[in-house]
This record gives sequence, C-alpha cells and structure tokens, in this order.
Amino acid sequence: MGLTLTEKVLSKALVEGQLKRGSRIGLKADQTLTHDLNGIMSHLVLESIGLKQKKVDLAVQYLDHNIIQADFKNADDHNFTLDMTSRLGIITARTGNGICHHLHLEHFAAPGKVLIGGDSHTTAAGGIGSFAVGVGGFDNAMSIAGETFHMTMPQVVKVNLTGRLQPMVSAKNIILELLRRVSVKGGVGKVFEFTGEGVTTLNVSERSTITNMGTETGATTSLFPSDENTRKWLKAFNREKDYIPLSADEDALYDDVIEINLSELEPLIALPSQPDRVVKVREVAGTKIDQVMIGSCTNTSVQDLLNVGNILEGETIDRNVELGVYPSTRTVIMESIARGSYENIVASGARIFEPVCGGCNGCGFAPATNGVSLRTTPRNFKGRSGTKSDQVYLVAPETAAASAITGVITDPRDLGKQPIHFEIPEKFIFDKNIFIMPENNPDKPVRKGPNIKPIPEFSSMEDQTVGEVILKLEDDITTDHICPAGALYLPIRSNIPEMSKHSFQGIDTTFYDRAVRAKGSILIAGHNYGQGSSREQAAIIPRYLGINVVIAKGFARLHLANMVNWGILPLIFKSDEDYDSIDQGDILEVETISLKEGQDIKVINKSKNSVMHLKSPLFQEDLDAIKEGGFVNILRNKNKAE
Amino acid sequence: MGLTLTEKVLSKALVEGQLKRGSRIGLKADQTLTHDLNGIMSHLVLESIGLKQKKVDLAVQYLDHNIIQADFKNADDHNFTLDMTSRLGIITARTGNGICHHLHLEHFAAPGKVLIGGDSHTTAAGGIGSFAVGVGGFDNAMSIAGETFHMTMPQVVKVNLTGRLQPMVSAKNIILELLRRVSVKGGVGKVFEFTGEGVTTLNVSERSTITNMGTETGATTSLFPSDENTRKWLKAFNREKDYIPLSADEDALYDDVIEINLSELEPLIALPSQPDRVVKVREVAGTKIDQVMIGSCTNTSVQDLLNVGNILEGETIDRNVELGVYPSTRTVIMESIARGSYENIVASGARIFEPVCGGCNGCGFAPATNGVSLRTTPRNFKGRSGTKSDQVYLVAPETAAASAITGVITDPRDLGKQPIHFEIPEKFIFDKNIFIMPENNPDKPVRKGPNIKPIPEFSSMEDQTVGEVILKLEDDITTDHICPAGALYLPIRSNIPEMSKHSFQGIDTTFYDRAVRAKGSILIAGHNYGQGSSREQAAIIPRYLGINVVIAKGFARLHLANMVNWGILPLIFKSDEDYDSIDQGDILEVETISLKEGQDIKVINKSKNSVMHLKSPLFQEDLDAIKEGGFVNILRNKNKAE
Repeated sequence: MGLTLTEKVLSKALVEGQLKRGSRIGLKADQTLTHDLNGIMSHLVLESIGLKQKKVDLAVQYLDHNIIQADFKNADDHNFTLDMTSRLGIITARTGNGICHHLHLEHFAAPGKVLIGGDSHTTAAGGIGSFAVGVGGFDNAMSIAGETFHMTMPQVVKVNLTGRLQPMVSAKNIILELLRRVSVKGGVGKVFEFTGEGVTTLNVSERSTITNMGTETGATTSLFPSDENTRKWLKAFNREKDYIPLSADEDALYDDVIEINLSELEPLIALPSQPDRVVKVREVAGTKIDQVMIGSCTNTSVQDLLNVGNILEGETIDRNVELGVYPSTRTVIMESIARGSYENIVASGARIFEPVCGGCNGCGFAPATNGVSLRTTPRNFKGRSGTKSDQVYLVAPETAAASAITGVITDPRDLGKQPIHFEIPEKFIFDKNIFIMPENNPDKPVRKGPNIKPIPEFSSMEDQTVGEVILKLEDDITTDHICPAGALYLPIRSNIPEMSKHSFQGIDTTFYDRAVRAKGSILIAGHNYGQGSSREQAAIIPRYLGINVVIAKGFARLHLANMVNWGILPLIFKSDEDYDSIDQGDILEVETISLKEGQDIKVINKSKNSVMHLKSPLFQEDLDAIKEGGFVNILRNKNKAE
Repeated sequence: MGLTLTEKVLSKALVEGQLKRGSRIGLKADQTLTHDLNGIMSHLVLESIGLKQKKVDLAVQYLDHNIIQADFKNADDHNFTLDMTSRLGIITARTGNGICHHLHLEHFAAPGKVLIGGDSHTTAAGGIGSFAVGVGGFDNAMSIAGETFHMTMPQVVKVNLTGRLQPMVSAKNIILELLRRVSVKGGVGKVFEFTGEGVTTLNVSERSTITNMGTETGATTSLFPSDENTRKWLKAFNREKDYIPLSADEDALYDDVIEINLSELEPLIALPSQPDRVVKVREVAGTKIDQVMIGSCTNTSVQDLLNVGNILEGETIDRNVELGVYPSTRTVIMESIARGSYENIVASGARIFEPVCGGCNGCGFAPATNGVSLRTTPRNFKGRSGTKSDQVYLVAPETAAASAITGVITDPRDLGKQPIHFEIPEKFIFDKNIFIMPENNPDKPVRKGPNIKPIPEFSSMEDQTVGEVILKLEDDITTDHICPAGALYLPIRSNIPEMSKHSFQGIDTTFYDRAVRAKGSILIAGHNYGQGSSREQAAIIPRYLGINVVIAKGFARLHLANMVNWGILPLIFKSDEDYDSIDQGDILEVETISLKEGQDIKVINKSKNSVMHLKSPLFQEDLDAIKEGGFVNILRNKNKAE
C-alpha cells in the first residue's frame, strides 16, 4: 500500500511511536520558527533550563508581531530575544523586516522538512512541502533544545484540485471554499494534503496562502507536494540545493477525499466573525465599507501586491475608506518597487506600512466603532482587529483592492480591469541585511527589561479538584477570548500576572476578580475550545488563576497541547445534555486521584446533586504530565535533579 | 525707518492694535492648519458654536499624529474629523499621507501669509516666508471661524547668516547652534528673522527645518525672506502663482542681532533631555546607541532622505541598532523611490514607516529601557519617546545615518563618504490623491465615537481663590509633563475626564488623586512653564481638576494663551526668594476680586503667614476673560445670547 505525503515526511522524523492514525508519535524537528510574541516564553523556558546552544539543525527567530513600541516593553523584548538567539545560535530577522511565515518560505522552508513553529500559521510552509506545525512557546522551546515533539498522528484528507483558477479569482478563494465546506472545526485531528492537476497551476506562494489559512479549519497542518514549481521558487531565492521532489503515492490511503474544481470558483468572502462563514462576494456586494486591509502572512506575496497594484493603477481610494497595505517581506517591497506596483498603490491614496503582521493581530489599524473592515487576513474573530465592535470580512486581495476603490464590497471581476500574468522570476531581488547571524557566545549577557517576568511556579495536581464553574462558555472560544490580542495587550504577554487581569474580558469583565477570589475554579465550554492562535498564555493564565480543569464539548489541537504543558486537565462531555446540566456558579468535584487513558473520570455536580463520568482526550503520557502539574514541571524537576 | 519682515507681513493682517513691541495685537489669519490630535478639540468647539462654513480663506486638516489605531478611538477621531471638515469646507489630507507641516509647505504655505496652526511646529511655514504661529485648539477653531487672533507683538531678532554650510553639515545644525546660543527660553516673546548672504544658500525645506525647530527656543515664530529659492520651491509644486518677493528693509529696526557663520558650523548634537543642551558631535562620538530615528516635521525632506540614502548605500545597520525612518510626505517617498534612495535605505536593514509623526511624539518606535536613541526630531523631552527612562539625542540626518552604521555616535564626516549635491527639481512628482476635498454640506451627519466627550463646563472666577499648593515644580515643565504624549495617551486626548487621570504622572503619580480630593488647588512652577507642544489639554486638565491659578517664574507663550482660553490665571514671581518661600502643601489665598493689567495681585501664604504681591503677564482683555472663566466661556455666553 502506498504512502501519503504526510507519512513520507513524518517517517524520516519519527523517533517515537508508529505512524498510526490517532496514536501518539514523537518527532525530531528539522527546523524551528519563533516570533517576538510567543518567542519570549520560549526563551524564558530556554534560559531557565540553561541551554547553551540550540540542538535543532536550523532555528530562526522573527520580530514581526508586536513592534509598535508604544513604550519600553516591545524594545526590551527585542533586546532579550536578540541576546538569547545570539547566545544559542539562532538566526534572527531584524525587527520589521518581514512576516515570519513568508520570510521563512522565502529563505528557509524546504520540502520534506519538519518545521515546528510558535505560531498557528506556521502551516504556511506546507506550501513548499514542509510538514509545518504550530505549537505553543513551551513545545517550541523543547524543539529548539532538541527534545522530541509529541503529537497525535492525524488522519489524512486528500484535497483533489482540478481545473484552473479564473481571472481575478486567486488562491485565497480556494481556502475560503475549503473553510465553507469543512467549517472551523472540520480539520481537527486531520492533515489536508493537496493533489491533482490543479496543484501544478499554483506556485509556492499561492500554495502557501492555502496551507497558511488551512489552520483555520483546526487542521494539524496542510501540505502540498514538491514539484517543478517548488524548484522554481527555491531557485529564485538561490536555494535550488534544498529541492527534492516529493509527492504521495498513487495508491496512498486517505481517510477522506474532498474535490475542488478551481475553474468553478468565484470570489468568496467570509462574513463576520468566523473564517468559515463563507459566501460569494456577489451575495453581499454593495455593502458599505469603512476600511480595507491588504496584508498578513496569508496574502501579501509579490504576486498579491502586483495584482493589487494593477487594480489600483490610476485609481483613487474612495473618500470614506482607508486602505492599509502591509507587504509580507522586504523582498516583496523591493520587487513591487522594481515592477512599479508600489508606486501605483501609494499613488491611489493607500497607506503602506512596514512588512509586519500589523492590523491582522490588532497591532494597529483598528477600525472605527462598528467599523466594516475588509481584510485579506486569515482570521476575523470578533475584536481581534483591536475594536470590539468590529465587523471584519475576509477576502482575496483582488476583492479588497476593488472594494477600496468603490467604497462598497465589490466582485473584482465587475470592475472590468485586465488581470496581469505573474510568473515566479528567475531570481528575486536579494537582500543581504534581513538576517542577523548569531554570535554563538553562551556567555553573552542577556538584557531583560522590567516587564519580562519569570514564568509562574505551578503545583502538581491534587487527588480531588473542587471548584466553582467560574465561566460557562459557548462554542468556538478562541485564544483571543482567553488572552486578548491587540496593541494594548501584546506588550504584556511576557508578564503573566499583568496579562491575566485582561483574560476573558470581552466575555465577562468580572471574570478576573471572581477567579482570583475563587482561588481554584473550573471552566465549562462548548465545541472547539481554544481555537485560533497558538499563544500558550491562554493556558498559562487560567492555570495561574487557579483553573486546573476545563470541561468542553471539544478542544482545538494546539490549545490542548498547551494545556498539557502547563497542567490543565481537559475533559470532554459525553453529550450535550451533560453540558446543559451545568450552570455557571455550580460547584464541581472532579476525581483526579487516578488519571488513566481512556478511563472515565467522575465529576460530581455538588450544586445539582448529580454525577457524570467524563473522559479526557489525552494519552497516558500527557495525563501523567498533568498529574505532575504539566510538562513544564517535569522539565523543571528534571533540571533540579541534574 | 524701514520695516522688518515681521512688520511687513503683519501689517497686512492687522485688524486690532498697533505693531508695537509688547502690545496686544489682533490678526486675521489667511490660513489655518489642524491635525488629528489637537484638531478634535477645535472641531468640538466649532460644533458647539454651530459653525456652518469656515470663514478663513484656506483651512487644511491633517491626519498624521495619532494613527496607530490600537482600538476604535483613533479611527473614530478620523471619522469625526472627516465629517466636520467635509461640512465646513476644510480640505483634509488622507490619514497617514504626510506630516502636516511638510505637506503644508509643499502644497499650501505661501510667502506673506499669516498661518495659524494647532501645533507648536506650525512655524515650519516660516521657511517659505509665512508668519506661522502655533496655537491651541481653541484659538485654532476661532481662526477657522474667522475670529480675530490675539497675541503679543513680539520683539524681532535678526539672525544674520554668513558663509555656506560645509559638506555633511546640513541645515539642522544651524538651528542646533541657535539653540545652543539662546537656550529653550531665549526666544520667548521674540521672532527670529533670518537674513544675510547665507540665506541664499538654503532652499525652502532647509529653511523650514530651521524655522520649524525654532519653536524650541520659545519664539513666537521664525521666518525667512521670500526670494528666488522660494519661487523655485513653489514652481516645483505647480504653485508659482503664490510667489511674491519679500524681505526686510535694509534699515529695519531689530531688537537684537545674532551672527552665525555657516562655514564654521560642524555637526552638532543636543544631549538628553533638552533641545538646547548642544555640543559638537565629536565631543560625544563613540557613545553606544540602541536606536536611530530619522523623521519628523523637522527633518525628512526629499533632500534629507537622499542624503541618508547616500550614506547608507551598500552599508549594513549595526546589529545592535534599530534604524527607523519616517519620510515626511508621500511626495518624499515617491521622489526617493524614483531616485533610488528609498531602496538603499530599505536594503541597509532600516525600517521604513509610513509618512507620519510616529516616534517623534511617542506614537510608536519607543526605545528600550534606558535606551539611547539618536533622533532627527525637534524635541527630546524626557519620556516623550514613550519610554520614561529614554536618553534621546537630537542630530541632523547625516549624523543619524552614520551612527546607525557604526553603532556609536559618529560625526558623518568621519566615514569618508562623498556628499551628494541636491537641487530643488523643476517639478516634484505630483500626487493627486493626498487630499480629500470638502463636500461643503452643512447638514452632513457627523459620526462621533464613544470616546469623544463634550468639553467640560467651567465656572467663572471667584473673588478669592484659596487652595493648597498641590505641586511645586521646577523649571522647564513641558506640556508633555502636564498631559503626556505617547501611543497610550494620545487616543484619549478627546476625553478630558479620562486623560486627566494621567496628568503629571511622570512627576508625581499621586497628583491626580490629590487634586481630585483637594477640589481646588494651585500650581507653583519655575521658568518656562508650559514649554513644548501646543496641546491645550495641558490647560484644560488642570482647570478640570480645579486648578484656577498657576504661579511661575515664567510661562511659555503658547501655553499662556491656552490658560487664558480655558480660564487659568497665570501669576509671575517677582523674585526667586518668593518661589523659594513656598512649599508644596502650603495653603495660598489669591485675591482675584479685581484683575487689572499691570497691577499687583495679593497672595497670602496662610501656612507661612506671609504675603507677596505678584503680577499677571496678561493684558486687560485676557484678565477680563479669565474672570469670566476663560475665552471659552465668553464664546459660550455669546452663543447662548444669540
């Protein structure tokens, strides 16, 4: 029987377990990627274990997420990061020189490699044939330190692409279509592997748009085969040596198959405020907009900016619209300048920002109160833009540019513009100053600003966990809900006591005070708890506030791993009735004396005098870790022993 | 007897009084300039008086200061501004399309015009021969409404420039030299008029660098004659019709003369944290730096960026330095792209931001804790960068660029680079989409976000003002001290109750609580109280907190005007002993029953059982206004009567 692409790549990295769907496997990462936001936690972990030198082949640090620098905190974070990376042998991209995922795609990502990245959109490297997984800062640190990365072997879904995209219908619409079909939960426990004749019509940056935003389905990752288009991309960045051909066997066994005919796609749009609320642009055409943002790791490649420049050439942005453009990388800036596109964008009245994440994670460019914002970003979770009452729609760059001109949501085909033809060039413009090479000096002093606080100490798990249901939550609670994004909060991510004051604030402003008073409580949630960003603060903060158990209808993969690392026990409701039977304020008693994989755990609702028996979705190794207070404690104890 | 340039320009605008040094004069403005930060207050005033249409010839609104948009507040401010300007017939520059002073210089400022602008650096237009005065939002609003603008006729100081600047010594060093000579108080009550053969060697943007930063001397304004260089500038922006020749008469009577030989100047630097702490760059060469910022209204003309690009060509920014560049305007971006300079800057590893004020007023790019930052900005007041412990040095762009390469403070002449020769071109690249023309629709609905609060109501002055000395301050208290700048505070400038909570926080974190409890108190200060930015919140907030009297050794001109508008009585100590005799916490009783110009006002120190007799520096009209609670109350009463 043939192998899937996933199996082929993972078989080379496998160091524990077997590639059996649903089983626990251990991988040795080839590459790691950290950024300024989640990377601080990684470096605090690495500092605490006294690592002298990275033990992964390639580690790259980016500074792209949190760089407004409203005060000392961001710059202090950058200094801390630069000193740690310089010590450990990690390459660092200069601040504001590009969005990590696109820079990594340009300069480091390679087919057949396992990339562990501290960001949920690490999956972007799947476009080049990497098996790229987003993790929390702790797992990220472990991979840098050469430790085995554990995960559940996912199911593999074949996404068969046929046909060819029509003019003004770009790759973003493929992933919007997939989200429309499978929803934001449809990828949980799965990998999407793209195959079919349609694949050969897509270049690496187009493929990356798809795998990048694929994370919004909840998938472990998504990946494309490596073919001549992959070689062309690598060659354009002087990396042809990284090329290997790679594809699934013809007779590979898939768990499911999805067919998408590219020829039939038309411009799509995700309505506020979930990426899977996808309809055709024409269904909502004419809706008045306030703001357009073109950017993010999903959608500002050279090709994207050339398409945008083509649509904006000679045009004027509508007087009531602000158009903000964040190019992906400095290479994208240089290429679009050289090809005249940059000037067309500037001349239209657009604002061009530096190549960073910016507005995508609420670091600037927040819309007005109730503002309608059209964005090429991967996510439109409520409030992520920085404005709680935002109405964010997700679109392809062509739709964004067309709508910026008209002031209303517009199908780009309706402007009557001629599309341009884009080919990956022989060589992209080379920029020698993006990266700072490490000094590999383990004794280099590390600057650590006053806002960078040590990771809190956590106790091991008691035999019984009794607590009030401090919050009862709905489906699709994101890590943005638990630990808000945005310019006001990102700078305090390295300060758990301070950050915790803002947790769940968009849902219940009394949460923090009540949780502190309760000194030990329990969270109840619906499906897909912990969706979205990989930030592990969404696990550390509840734990810091005394929450040792979360009971939900289901968990997002990445967040589940963070819960294990930081010692929160996840339990899953057997039925909706169980969920319905619990009210906020109920006192629950959870029998945590013995945690066995697959065995029931007894939960007594003392307020309702009822009992339910729930299971944890975790493996025994993970349950053992939780009993000790999380993998963070195991690591700490190991260090103490040494 | 001949006339000074000041007298020539003002004689055409004079509508009240006589051009006699020290007397109160009334002017009719030709142009007004507002920006997003101080402009909100202006528009709240204009809205409250129900103005239907601007009554000044030309009014331009800019959106450049406060545009990080960390949440809804900035964007709400932009919407409010755009609706008000559209109603009133005011031209609006699109958000982030350029720094107000440089955009105004490019597109509107003209020789012989009186420009009233809601920003202390409005004086930039003096470079083209405008009499350009920075005012608070209230006076700005009054000028838009066609009301007479009142000020004290200043003394006129001739600054005679001889010789010619040497290579790598640019215009910024001229104003640094002037500051070195006269100090940050040396211009109070004065205008600096530049004359001499050296003037002809400077183009309009170089002249503007000088007049712009001239405001740091405390001067009312600074101005240059209008000559062939002025015509050339206007022609390059298709405005040759705005040209008139203009210069002082040979036998004009000046109050003082300062001689500066340009040939003898070398690169200068202002040490932290006042713009007049000026020494030669070589005296501090070798000092390690963390950050370089090239930008601001003072220093990012096309010429500046070309000089910077020339120095950075083929170079790499030091690994421990972040270089941030904010071009002045979109024209500057387009020109530097067209001339290849932009790419040289990007390729060096620099961050290029959009053309806004940015880091200059703490809106991003704050240095790290204790960070050493070299900036081409006009001001280095402690904490203005957004980082309280900052160490900001002020330099010319050439020094900034050279130091970014070496990582230490560096005289640009020591790099051995060949300077470039710059000439104002026949035509600058034309950008038709910078400005949004007004709709002139008085019934246009105005969007007003929840953070935009009405201006507080203020009572008239009691016959006796009794209060505790709530703070005793030193010399050179800036409006940044009173009402902090920076990304965290700028968005709440249109919300006085909220903003007031942060007043004087850098000096005394207990101030706000104590002032609220005191329900009426008095401030004591040294020389030059209210130095710096024109923000009138620095008057409104103390007033809102019950402070009706400030006693100081001296006041900054612009802030004095704001105090009158908002009803705070300024009194001046007769001697240092009087200042020394008062302690924080003393209870003072000020006899405010009768306020007469030039007459003593009795102040009883009830805690010390002593009496002093002080004078107010104000004219009778101003004292009358204060008795009524400020000009804001006079205007309100007038409206009620109508």
